[in-house]
Amino acid sequence: MDDIRFAVLGTGGIGRRTLEVSQHKDGLTAVAACDRNGVAVDHDGLDVDELLDATEGNIASGPQGGPGQSSGDEPRDSGPDEASGSTPATPTDDYASDGGAAAVEGGGVKQHGDQSGIVASEQGEPTETPIDDIIAESDAVDAVLLALPNLEHDFIPRVAERFAEADYEGVMIDVLKRSRVIGMLDDREGLLRESGITFVCGAGATPGFLTGAAALAAQSFVEVEAVEIWWGVGLKSGYEDNRGTVREDIAHLDGYDIETAREMSEDEIEALIDEHDGVLEFHDMEHADDVLLERAGICDAEDVHVGGVLDVRSDEKPTTTTVSVTGTTFDGETGTNTFELDDATSMEANVNGPALGYLKAGVRNNRAGHYGVFGPADLMPGF
Amino acid sequence: MDDIRFAVLGTGGIGRRTLEVSQHKDGLTAVAACDRNGVAVDHDGLDVDELLDATEGNIASGPQGGPGQSSGDEPRDSGPDEASGSTPATPTDDYASDGGAAAVEGGGVKQHGDQSGIVASEQGEPTETPIDDIIAESDAVDAVLLALPNLEHDFIPRVAERFAEADYEGVMIDVLKRSRVIGMLDDREGLLRESGITFVCGAGATPGFLTGAAALAAQSFVEVEAVEIWWGVGLKSGYEDNRGTVREDIAHLDGYDIETAREMSEDEIEALIDEHDGVLEFHDMEHADDVLLERAGICDAEDVHVGGVLDVRSDEKPTTTTVSVTGTTFDGETGTNTFELDDATSMEANVNGPALGYLKAGVRNNRAGHYGVFGPADLMPGF
Repeated sequence: MDDIRFAVLGTGGIGRRTLEVSQHKDGLTAVAACDRNGVAVDHDGLDVDELLDATEGNIASGPQGGPGQSSGDEPRDSGPDEASGSTPATPTDDYASDGGAAAVEGGGVKQHGDQSGIVASEQGEPTETPIDDIIAESDAVDAVLLALPNLEHDFIPRVAERFAEADYEGVMIDVLKRSRVIGMLDDREGLLRESGITFVCGAGATPGFLTGAAALAAQSFVEVEAVEIWWGVGLKSGYEDNRGTVREDIAHLDGYDIETAREMSEDEIEALIDEHDGVLEFHDMEHADDVLLERAGICDAEDVHVGGVLDVRSDEKPTTTTVSVTGTTFDGETGTNTFELDDATSMEANVNGPALGYLKAGVRNNRAGHYGVFGPADLMPGF
Repeated sequence: MDDIRFAVLGTGGIGRRTLEVSQHKDGLTAVAACDRNGVAVDHDGLDVDELLDATEGNIASGPQGGPGQSSGDEPRDSGPDEASGSTPATPTDDYASDGGAAAVEGGGVKQHGDQSGIVASEQGEPTETPIDDIIAESDAVDAVLLALPNLEHDFIPRVAERFAEADYEGVMIDVLKRSRVIGMLDDREGLLRESGITFVCGAGATPGFLTGAAALAAQSFVEVEAVEIWWGVGLKSGYEDNRGTVREDIAHLDGYDIETAREMSEDEIEALIDEHDGVLEFHDMEHADDVLLERAGICDAEDVHVGGVLDVRSDEKPTTTTVSVTGTTFDGETGTNTFELDDATSMEANVNGPALGYLKAGVRNNRAGHYGVFGPADLMPGF
């Protein structure tokens, strides 16, 4: 495949690690990145090491309204941080990252330059319109990875809309999790097609890697009865960097929802974690794996169950990440195929590798003129 | 996806089961099938049940020169059967199936009509040019599944060539196994592209299903060190139908090769099987998984190892079919991801489901104008 020039919107955890992992991959050149306050563009390829160095600590931790994050692998980009005095972001704001959020109380994370984030990089330029700045360069971009906080459920869909309205022709890819967002993208499919956009949604670990595994494991069967996605994340050393993520996960616990989790103080969260000895177990989470498998015709959304165990006091995974697909074969046998990730593979490896893998598949499709909205299962053998 | 009209070349084990499994799938209509002596075409869809009934017993068993078959899941179509008096087929012959081969000594399989095979079906017409007859209908065909005996290594590639020369625009898909065939298809890629053919090669179980699983399991890693594909097949009740397959497998045992296996008498094979108490174990088989993973950039062909255990005296799998992919993550950890098929899933389910799954993916690509030669791993997230 010819070289792929890509841009990253957002330089929180996902954005930065995408840049990092891309350096290990053939045929990927990062040409643009932006966060809340800055943009860096180099058509010959950014100096990723310098950029990563300068943006180290771009991690949010305060009470935030981030995306529906569960396996600890979405941008820990946070919502607007009242403590840092910024105004609440809305989808029409050009809020492209968590840059700035690291100043949150209790963060204790590294900061560079007068301002944090991309503007601390030699390659960065300050801007008040980072997304527009990237759109302005998008003729020279084959793929855009959205590592943005999906503050409102329609934030990512609305960003896609803006690219479409600017006649961007290329791939957009996100690692969103919430089931309800997929329909909002589907609603915009006509607009995306018209522009020439191949939008790959839900392409992180789960949904993403594990959705694809489920779609593949289903191939033995003519009828799929159940898909169980069960993840384990050990987050001791990554805990500080992933407080926003943990907060999101709490929203999935019994008695909590997005709103209550968002409003909890840090102390309340710590108390809750203490109560559970650092180990939180989740069942029936709202992960888009369900609608993504249903829209690919593999099974009903209600037959998909996502859960897992998060241990914030150990780096060992508390349980092995496993996808189990139970179905019936054409010759009438019932069985369960399984896909297991080695406990040594980190959450980050399992988000960012697949995200770039799906990005490449997206580019393959886009270059062939295949536009619209694709879930991970749509980029697999058909069912 | 709009309805897919497909044709099957060959009505041996793979061809017949493809027709059978397709009836459990949405959006697939079988419109044509052929074997050595006959062709059946119905643009509104064949009566698959009637065709299957009429062609029951279309299985070869005698000493044959079939394709590089190892996991017992390729067309057990055989070469020309001297015992039945036919002349040796060559790639330029219109030999499209194993019809007729069932008359082989010791077969004891069901026969219908004056002639065996498709002509025994109410829908069948006798022909001396079955492949040309299908080509003549190919404007109304979206995909052609080649369940042909790859008598010579270049037989399948040359059939593809004939479709290309007739300006067929659509998908062709095979379940071939031998590594060396892939290069022969690649040599014809220009011709296939020009015609508008999307050729999906090696799309059965292994290569195919398990190649795809390896490509997906690799997504955690930035460097893949080893891919181990290990299959188990229990073939007691299917033994009579799969003698040709067993013969092919024997070619992979120490001290044997394709030629020696082809020349063995039935008695010699039985003696060898007795010697092994019915259980044959294979290592380092020539399966195209290796070149298919290498051409997708996932690892070196030499790092891929395929082996397995065949038990012809039990229907239980003697070992669990497993794909293990060992690699290093971007953050420096080494691990092994695994994909396991339930022992209850038959070889047939694991060949024919994926073959139709890859066929659908091929049609998706073909309709988008994406032509050329694709392995299973090329229809997965990129690496």
